[in-house]
This record gives sequence, C-alpha cells and structure tokens, in this order.
Amino acid sequence: MAELVGNVLVGQSGGPTSVINASVAGIIGEALNHECIEEIYGTLNGVLGILQEDLIDLASESQQQIRALKHTPGAALGTCRFKLKKQADFDRVLEVFKAHNIRYFFYIGGNDSQDTADKISKLAQAQGWEMRVIGVPKTIDNDLPGTDHTPGYASAAKYIATTVRELACDNEAMGQGDLVSIVEVMGRSAGWIAASAALAKRRDHPHDPPHLILLPEIPFNQEKVLEDVKRVLKREKYCLIVVAEGLVDADGNYVAADGATDAFGHATLGGAGDALAEIVNANIPGLKVRVAKPGLMQRCASHAASKTDADEAYLAGQAAVKAAINGETDKMVTLIRGDGDTYTTETGLAPLSEVANSVKKLPREWINEDGVSMNFQFLRYAQPLIQGEVVIPHDNGVPVFARLDKVRVDKILPGYDV
Amino acid sequence: MAELVGNVLVGQSGGPTSVINASVAGIIGEALNHECIEEIYGTLNGVLGILQEDLIDLASESQQQIRALKHTPGAALGTCRFKLKKQADFDRVLEVFKAHNIRYFFYIGGNDSQDTADKISKLAQAQGWEMRVIGVPKTIDNDLPGTDHTPGYASAAKYIATTVRELACDNEAMGQGDLVSIVEVMGRSAGWIAASAALAKRRDHPHDPPHLILLPEIPFNQEKVLEDVKRVLKREKYCLIVVAEGLVDADGNYVAADGATDAFGHATLGGAGDALAEIVNANIPGLKVRVAKPGLMQRCASHAASKTDADEAYLAGQAAVKAAINGETDKMVTLIRGDGDTYTTETGLAPLSEVANSVKKLPREWINEDGVSMNFQFLRYAQPLIQGEVVIPHDNGVPVFARLDKVRVDKILPGYDV
Repeated sequence: MAELVGNVLVGQSGGPTSVINASVAGIIGEALNHECIEEIYGTLNGVLGILQEDLIDLASESQQQIRALKHTPGAALGTCRFKLKKQADFDRVLEVFKAHNIRYFFYIGGNDSQDTADKISKLAQAQGWEMRVIGVPKTIDNDLPGTDHTPGYASAAKYIATTVRELACDNEAMGQGDLVSIVEVMGRSAGWIAASAALAKRRDHPHDPPHLILLPEIPFNQEKVLEDVKRVLKREKYCLIVVAEGLVDADGNYVAADGATDAFGHATLGGAGDALAEIVNANIPGLKVRVAKPGLMQRCASHAASKTDADEAYLAGQAAVKAAINGETDKMVTLIRGDGDTYTTETGLAPLSEVANSVKKLPREWINEDGVSMNFQFLRYAQPLIQGEVVIPHDNGVPVFARLDKVRVDKILPGYDV
Repeated sequence: MAELVGNVLVGQSGGPTSVINASVAGIIGEALNHECIEEIYGTLNGVLGILQEDLIDLASESQQQIRALKHTPGAALGTCRFKLKKQADFDRVLEVFKAHNIRYFFYIGGNDSQDTADKISKLAQAQGWEMRVIGVPKTIDNDLPGTDHTPGYASAAKYIATTVRELACDNEAMGQGDLVSIVEVMGRSAGWIAASAALAKRRDHPHDPPHLILLPEIPFNQEKVLEDVKRVLKREKYCLIVVAEGLVDADGNYVAADGATDAFGHATLGGAGDALAEIVNANIPGLKVRVAKPGLMQRCASHAASKTDADEAYLAGQAAVKAAINGETDKMVTLIRGDGDTYTTETGLAPLSEVANSVKKLPREWINEDGVSMNFQFLRYAQPLIQGEVVIPHDNGVPVFARLDKVRVDKILPGYDV
C-alpha cells in the first residue's frame, strides 16, 4: 500500500458529549506519530466550517490545551446540525479538501454524521481524489449499530446514576408517603439513558431507587403506572421515577405535552416529566410531585464523567488515525467488548453505510417482565462502562476546561453561501 | 455554671442539603468529647419523630458511617415540613424530652425550624425543664439573617456554577445565533442561588455565561429581557440564561406558569424557566430554546459539593455542642467571616428569636446596574465559599453514601396521634 501524504481534517458534529473532545485529542495525539501527515486542521462547526473554509491549525495548539480536551465537555471545534443536501454543497466540500490537500478526514458524530462522512467518501472516490475517511462514533444516546456502545453514553449514564443515587438520599429523607420525584432524561427513540438510572441501585437492593423506569421501548400504560406509583408509595413512602423524554403510548404518540398548544394557541413546553406529573397529580390526590429535568446538563456533566468512557473516546480517535494510515477508508471505528470475565475493549471497523441512519434499541430481554426495571443482563452490559472517575482540575472552585486558540488557516478559495 | 448531665437529641428539618449530614457528624463528634452527655439520640423526621417517640441511638452507629455522613446528601435522620401548632403537640415534645432525659436538643434547619426550636426552648423554660436548645443553620437558599452565610448554600452554588460552566462549553459549540439555553434554579424569595451562576465566569471575561441572571429581587421586564437576549445572541451566537424560580413581575406576580390552569382546569406545571422559554419563543422567531431544571438535584449534588461548605457544616455542628456545654441556650450557631484578606470563618451565636421567620435578600448593591449580572462585591462574598472539592468514595462507578443502622430507642410513653 502506497503511503498517502497530506493533511488531516477533524470535525465534530451533532450534539456534544462529555467526551467528544477526548476523541479529538486522540486523533491529534496519534496523527503526530505519522510523518505522512503534514498538517492537522480542524473544521469549525463541522461541515459548515468546510463549506465556509473556516479551518483552524490544531498543530499550533499547546500540548496543555490538547491534554485538557480529555476532560472538556462540549465540542471544542464547534459542531452543527447542518445536513449536506445539495450537490453543490458536496462539490464545495471536495473543492475545499483539494485546496487544502486534505487526504485524511475524521468525522466525530452520530448517525447523521456518519451518513455525511459516507457520502463525502463516495464522492471523493467518484472524483478520483485519493483520501481516507473514517468516522468516530459519539452520542450519549448509545443508539449506533455496529458498536458495543458509543463514546459519550457511559458518562451520561454515570451522571444519571449518580444523580439518582443522590436524589434517593434527598427524597427518602422527605418521604412521608406523599412524595413523587420525577427525573426526565434524554432519549427520543431508545431508552439507554433512562435504563442507566438502574445503576444507582445497590447490589441486592431491588427496592432502591429508581422505583420505576419508563422507557420509550415500553408503551405507556397510565393505569399500570398509577398502580405502580401507589404500590411504591405504600412500601417506600416516596416514589422516584425516571422517564425518557421519548415515552410513547400504545398508539405511538408522545406522552409529552411538547408540541401541544394551550388555550391561547401557544405551544406548551412541558416534556414527558411534566406530563407524567400532571397525570399523577390528577389521579392520586394529596401528593407532592417534583420534576427535575437535567436537559442539556446530562450531555456535558464532565464533573461526573466516566474515566472508562473518556479513555475509550481517546482510543477511538487514535484508532481512526491508525486505520486511515493503514489504508482503510469509508469506515467507522467501533468498540468491541472482549469475551473474558474482566471487561476489556478493543476497536474495530464497520462500513459507514451500515451504521448510518439506523437506530439500536434497548433489547427487550434486558428489561424485566414488569416493564419498569432492568435485569442483570443490562447491568452486566452497563456497569463496566461507568467505572472510574475523571479528575478535573479546578481553579477558584470551578472546573477548568480547554480553550483552543483557534488559529485560522488562510482561506484560498472564494467565499461560498451556505 | 453547674454541669448539666443528660442526653442529646439531634433532629433535621426542612429541605435537605448536600452538607446537612455533616452537621450531624459534627454534633456527634463533639458530643463524644463530653462526659456530661450520656446518650446521643436522633429523632426520625424532625419533630414528627419526637411526637411519635421515634428515636434512634446514634452512639451505636459505626465510626465509618458517621464519617461518611460528611459527604452524604439528603437528611440521614429523615426530615419533615411538619409545623408544631397545637399546644398539645408542644406539651408532647416536652413529655418525650422528659421521658428520655433530653437535656440537649440540636435542631438543624432553616427559618421555620429555628422558630420551632425557639418555641420548644421557651416552653421548656416555662415548665422548669432545664435544657439547652441550640439551632444549627442549614438552607441552600442562604436567606437566614444573622449569619454570614448558611451551610448548604455554597455547595448548591458550586454545583450551579460548575453546571453553567459545563453548559457553556456545550452551548457555545452549538451556537449559530439561534440557541437560547435556560437554567431554572431554586430561590423562591431570594436570588442567592441564581446569583451563584456568576461564579462560572472566568476572571476578566464578563461576556462568559451566564449572559443573563434573572433574580427575584429585580422585577421581570419582558421588553428588556427580550432586548437583552437579542443583543447577546448577536454577540455570542447563543444566550445562556439563569432564572430563579421565584422571578416576579413589577406587580409581584410570579412569572412561572405554576398554579395556572389550562383549558381543562388542570394545573400547568411549568416553572419560571418554561414560562420564559414560551415568552422568548413567542417573540423572537426561529430560535431553539432549551430548558434545564435541576430541581431537587441542586440541593443534593454532593458530587460537586464545596469542601469549605462541608467543613463549615461540620464546624457548626461542633460549635452547637460546645455552646450548649458552655451553658448557652435558645441560640442559633452563626458563621462569622474574618476581616482579613484571607478567608477565615469562625462561629458565633444569635438569639433564635432573631433569626426565625425573617428572610435575608441579596443586597441590591451587589447586582450590577444592568440588573442581570453580579458585581465584584458578590464575587468577593461568594468565591471563598465554593473553594475545595469533597472527595467521595465510589463503588462500581457510583458514589457510596452513609446508611445508618437506625437502632431504635425503646419507647416509654403511650402512642400519640399526629
């Protein structure tokens, strides 16, 4: 295989996670090892930065800042939800690649982003521009197929489990048979994050919170949930419920009030948590119902990130570069779990076309018969992922995060209207 | 002064905090030093436990568990919002004290709880039951008068500042001029918690998030806030707003939709954050508005607790015992800040009657002219309080908290209907 000499471009796309920047650090760290890589560029805000030729010189960032990326939430390069649609956009991407001699493109993102990477890769091949395109998985949703799990998920899971265990201390202290505490977590179409709350239970304490986990995979049955709540209140004096934002009823309609309108035609902004609170309040008199909605907090809570997750995100970045150097292209890095009793992980590769635009749901057999709790199969899967704490430097009492200098690469091409 | 020989009773009351258990640990740790203290009891669920004679033997708990209280959120003894009203209730309290030879009563709580302690103390005096009653302050709201700050506040402040700094990383990455991120925090009548978000700003970076802090002390002006949001969006590409749940308009009405009813007569459960989101959405087209509502999470997030706070909560517990041993009664422990350049704190005492049922607001002169940001006077006040991180042991990836054995003290009296 002939050595491919040229420049690297790294981009981030979609919703950030606590560890997406660790993958950038992994890519940079590995790229520095290879002489055939000349420059290491980043694109600001994913494909938007490519279209607008907004590139930065990552090699000029200090080692300190690159190291700090390993514990910095958000997306240090900026991200976007922009979807390439027009042929002109794709052509522009290739034009920018050629102008800056981009021979290696690493795109860190979820389903949509892997689809974009796939299309760019195929277009480059069609145009005879020799390059290697490797996707790096990231999403707190954990819904990418072809990989045991996605970097970002475990840190969200650890944060939710930590939060539920803390709330349990609070709620138990307040519980007089009348407290219902609801935590609404992310997960539009899969319940991976909601399920992770089960990690808050102590071993052999099945009655520990969360008492009920309401998953998008299990259609919402109002009567059953109300009965469950009453039963738990009687036994525990309080009831802690974790509900996924994507909870749907038997007809597939969202339980959330989201998108509904009030008497004035205004959108009512409550989510599944508020909707559930309303149902509980309306049907069981005399309760105190409290809703917490961590919202975007759960995808950037690096102060409760999983070290395993941060390490694997870094590893995935390194693996992307190694694969590209070895001549691979049009692939996404995957995480493969070892077969042994001790948790190990190594990386693999899957064709981009196979991961793009499909969703991995929580297996039904990992959910208990009761539909509101997780069994040992889920725990065996998730527990190893949340091991270890990321130590974050603090200054003046708050965490210190990386701030890139973002030295711009000179533009070569005429402007382009997005 | 004659030595008073007898038993200690400790109770917790009102909403828990991340460090209220540290005060229990401080009381137990100090009580063990004094021979005149024979037994150390706890009451389950504050005054409720006294009325029902539900007492536990704290001296029989393991040293390990008592030490773990220093980092355990919630109220390990249980708490309540029950208010003693009837004379029969007060008489019952004294009856239980006499039956169990309670000569020292330490009550850890906020305004209402200090009021209860005050009444109990006065009744004991009236009945000639020699005892010492000392209150220990706690509330994340920081609204108790007579003390520089209250244990519990700083940990909530550190958590909110940490969260806002993390959200800033996330939101900045997503910001394309159209993202408004709203965090609703606690604070019904005072803006201490909302103000603490200002600690997320780096020194000399006034444009860092939070971009707008909406305080209960500053009447909500819709036109001004919308102008502020537009200005920030133009400059920063995103706008991060922290809003106190107790935000009110010029007429003193809550901005929150809370308590309002929808077309079906159901209570709409949105708070100030959702109400603000609706206003922004309705008046500035094309935005993505995201609301996070940590709710009860912010009073139990011990994984982001302030070490200074935990240490001071412990100190306040110790000081309560020392004061009682020295013959003080009917007082609350206060925290007094030293005058020097370096932050120091010592404890003092204030009459219970002076702290009960009054509220300390955020000083207007600590809020900038713009009404939506804090000046150096607030930072000088709050910054020392959030210094230091509490190290929490983890097991299997989640924090491990104290679990008391709660060995019951034998009941002596006939039952009592609450």
